[in-house]
Amino acid sequence: MRTPIDDLFEFLRFPSVSTEPAHQRDVAACADWLVRKFHSMGLAAETHATPGHPIVVARSAAQPGKRTVLIYGHYDVQPVDPVAEWTHPPFEPVVVDGRIFARGSTDNKGQILAHILGVEATLQESGELPVNVIFVVEGEEEIGSNNLEPFLKAHSAELVCDAVAISDTGMIAPGYPTFTYGLRGITALEVRVKGPATDLHSGNFGGAVANPATALARLVATLHDADGRVAVEGFYDDVALPADWELEAWKKLPVQDADFLALTGAPELFGEAGFSTLERLWSRPTVEVNGIGGGFQGEGSKTVIPREAFVKLTCRLVPHQDPEKIESLVRRHLESHAPRGVKVVVEGGHYAQPFLVDPLTPFGMAAQRALHRTFGEIPAMIREGGSIPITRVFTEVLNAPVLMLGLADPDCRAHAPDENLPVANFENGIRLNQLLLEELAK
Amino acid sequence: MRTPIDDLFEFLRFPSVSTEPAHQRDVAACADWLVRKFHSMGLAAETHATPGHPIVVARSAAQPGKRTVLIYGHYDVQPVDPVAEWTHPPFEPVVVDGRIFARGSTDNKGQILAHILGVEATLQESGELPVNVIFVVEGEEEIGSNNLEPFLKAHSAELVCDAVAISDTGMIAPGYPTFTYGLRGITALEVRVKGPATDLHSGNFGGAVANPATALARLVATLHDADGRVAVEGFYDDVALPADWELEAWKKLPVQDADFLALTGAPELFGEAGFSTLERLWSRPTVEVNGIGGGFQGEGSKTVIPREAFVKLTCRLVPHQDPEKIESLVRRHLESHAPRGVKVVVEGGHYAQPFLVDPLTPFGMAAQRALHRTFGEIPAMIREGGSIPITRVFTEVLNAPVLMLGLADPDCRAHAPDENLPVANFENGIRLNQLLLEELAK
Repeated sequence: MRTPIDDLFEFLRFPSVSTEPAHQRDVAACADWLVRKFHSMGLAAETHATPGHPIVVARSAAQPGKRTVLIYGHYDVQPVDPVAEWTHPPFEPVVVDGRIFARGSTDNKGQILAHILGVEATLQESGELPVNVIFVVEGEEEIGSNNLEPFLKAHSAELVCDAVAISDTGMIAPGYPTFTYGLRGITALEVRVKGPATDLHSGNFGGAVANPATALARLVATLHDADGRVAVEGFYDDVALPADWELEAWKKLPVQDADFLALTGAPELFGEAGFSTLERLWSRPTVEVNGIGGGFQGEGSKTVIPREAFVKLTCRLVPHQDPEKIESLVRRHLESHAPRGVKVVVEGGHYAQPFLVDPLTPFGMAAQRALHRTFGEIPAMIREGGSIPITRVFTEVLNAPVLMLGLADPDCRAHAPDENLPVANFENGIRLNQLLLEELAK
Repeated sequence: MRTPIDDLFEFLRFPSVSTEPAHQRDVAACADWLVRKFHSMGLAAETHATPGHPIVVARSAAQPGKRTVLIYGHYDVQPVDPVAEWTHPPFEPVVVDGRIFARGSTDNKGQILAHILGVEATLQESGELPVNVIFVVEGEEEIGSNNLEPFLKAHSAELVCDAVAISDTGMIAPGYPTFTYGLRGITALEVRVKGPATDLHSGNFGGAVANPATALARLVATLHDADGRVAVEGFYDDVALPADWELEAWKKLPVQDADFLALTGAPELFGEAGFSTLERLWSRPTVEVNGIGGGFQGEGSKTVIPREAFVKLTCRLVPHQDPEKIESLVRRHLESHAPRGVKVVVEGGHYAQPFLVDPLTPFGMAAQRALHRTFGEIPAMIREGGSIPITRVFTEVLNAPVLMLGLADPDCRAHAPDENLPVANFENGIRLNQLLLEELAK
């Protein structure tokens, strides 16, 4: 008999890496697989072409008079570099010690498939659903969801709904039910520092021209002060502090600095002075280097002055920072701090608005009851440090509350080697979907 | 009929990249080719195994009573990265507009082969040489020549000579005869900045742990002040200023800042305040970044905090700086400036002593006459910014003066894509060898 794990393994085997042009066909094949899955459950489903990767939309047979819940997820995944650091090949899923290892297991194939299989289970058990369901599963979440907003706007009449459910966030502790009411936003920039026309012999020319890699390091070093605070002028101007009830609630959560040390393996925790770890992660903005490179990368030595060096930066943003404003502040900082002797070229990337909702609306309470019933504990109320670019879009375009019910384990290694999802989270996710639709129908 | 260019092309086709383990067999095959070439000329020749790559030694038939000249060169070459930037494949030599393009064309296969073919031409023309000749051609110059000194020491009795000739330096202007009496030394270090145990999601963890790439940039930025002066304590303590006659001579050389701008394609020249370009290159030490890397290197974005970042550094040194002392000063600087939240690991690499000789000895004058006769101009007397690690070793172990008669064009792109050698320099190099041996016999 076919099990939920069988479905998940098939889904995980597609290397649907949206950022890499070489994987374009794999992304498309993964979308087609989803359509077939929905059809097999009796849902209407199709792919919608976009200028990028397709969006999969499925809907249950219309039941007039019932509420409608839109469930969002994504079938694209992050790249797998550094691939040598994976214990198992990233697109050959395995279960080891109760965990499913594969790229996308947590982010987001495992979570969206739990919702899909929850609907399948309810249909098999009851023959009908307590609410109308629309699934929107996109293929560009990891590259900024640029084509989702135009799609939602163009199809807003068909996508009218009472609530939007998303499982793409984390659990505060292993197996601990968690309701996420806030996310950080993001703005991405790439900086190239250009010097000589070609790599130069560092003996023959060293000392007479600026070294782009040295200049890049000097430039990156201006972004923070020694205490970890961002040194870009105006960066914190629009930052709102968390409410008192949040700070009180965060202090009581079952997570300590020791957990973060164990989880990250970092030598110590380090961040902006004057804030706790959870405050740093959930309510303070950052500028992070995601990649830096220039010159000789191989073994041994090669004595060159590189002609160019680059850095990939992302800023995580909190209410009420605006991604475009922050991009222009960081851009201005980088350009005005350009070291002598080189050219600094800054390119903007994708954006996401920070997100914050009131968790105590009727639908918010329904979601919390579903979590409570599934896991047997009162859910933790948290914000998260990551970004889901489209949370704001759903709120604004569809005018429906967004409910975030994450199934990611703290040690899920999303975006990193050995990404994994506990089998229990996957199975609980299926049950959670069933109870969520039941509670939302009340 | 077989031409000198035919021989050179064969020699250049070996991808004898000494720093890359994958090319070990190519390096060995290249050494074997040299031995066959020497045999074809009637010289005794053999390879000497070392813990690294072999050393090729050849000698002409002994002529008692004549002086002995040892000619040194190297058959190993630099890596070819970034290979996409080569106009022609680096190991498929071609002549375009009077220049031979290939990795090693200038550094050093073209130059050492000119000496070899000069000896061949004299033997063909006269049946004998004006001096005894010993060739020592090594395969580890680009990785620090670690095995040459032990070899020279072990074989010093067989290698007794009156002078050592080396063509591995540059001409001050295209086709302008140049005698090099000074070189910078080198010390290499590699720094790894280590943070979390694995790459982390920069949303989920950004702000709570130190980012190794950011920390590395901050560390590298401490190595210089904003005016390009090295900020390592004690770095300049042992630096000797050039003699007045040198500064006077350098001012008159046929090379201007505009030439360096054209040669490098840099946006502007930049270096330590208070010194001319030639002083910066020849008489001032540097700390250069040869490679920097960490995190996501591909197209697009991947929002990680990298677990590690690295930088490859080389310092170019001038009299009387000592490479080991400088290594320990830089190491201490790096360790004492380690940013918070990360671990800094410093590894030392290869060394070369700076080199400076009196150019007016009898053999020095003989070399200058050979240059004058070959090129029709009084040679320029220069130092160079590069390093030839073994110049000091020859002086100390064999107690013989080292004569440096470089054939590298200012635009030769040694160590970079599109390395090349003007055909005229190669052909003049053959003639130069013939006149050099004749002048040294006087």
